[in-house]
Amino acid sequence: MGVIHKFKGKDGGFDWEGISCETYVGDATKREVISQRDGANNFAIRYFEVAPGGYTSLDSHPHDHAVIVVRGKGAVLLGTEKHEINYGDAIYIPPLEIHQFENNSDEPLGFICVIPTKK
Amino acid sequence: MGVIHKFKGKDGGFDWEGISCETYVGDATKREVISQRDGANNFAIRYFEVAPGGYTSLDSHPHDHAVIVVRGKGAVLLGTEKHEINYGDAIYIPPLEIHQFENNSDEPLGFICVIPTKK
Repeated sequence: MGVIHKFKGKDGGFDWEGISCETYVGDATKREVISQRDGANNFAIRYFEVAPGGYTSLDSHPHDHAVIVVRGKGAVLLGTEKHEINYGDAIYIPPLEIHQFENNSDEPLGFICVIPTKK
Repeated sequence: MGVIHKFKGKDGGFDWEGISCETYVGDATKREVISQRDGANNFAIRYFEVAPGGYTSLDSHPHDHAVIVVRGKGAVLLGTEKHEINYGDAIYIPPLEIHQFENNSDEPLGFICVIPTKK
């Protein structure tokens, strides 16, 4: 049966009823918006938020992911190149590409991130 | 190599450089934001927009999908129940569930929709 997670974000913030906010790295939080808990066995949607001046970890892994910026702005390292990113930008990161998100602004940077589910 | 689709939406609208706007059904448009064209072989992210008073088609199919409302508000039919949906709400629709989106408001209803890629 379908599942609806009601949004409860305020003042530009992102938050959903029943979805916990986890620390991802020191500067960033993660919310598992759609996951295997909902019965989703093919993909997951997470919401990450990076504090001003913060970074996500420098990553390279076998799964790909896609990101859409939904709050603020910042930069993303893809391989050896850093790119400025703004509200609404959509980013595809293929398997094994080195990547890192950076909040170089003074407001929170928030993005939706889709990954295939591990099987 | 990673791909960035720069956002070019204005006045609350959603649009991306190089992403075409297709008619999905009479009342709705579709943009393939992240797709196999980008190298994404596990999932796709689409943006749908439904005009005021419009509907998506009444669907039931083997693939699941997940939706996040990013513009306006409306309603979704899940099975036999209709639910009001608003900005930020996240909806998981499992395989074969009957579903239909409706824009019962007087502003555009826009949502991001993730599906597994057909293999």
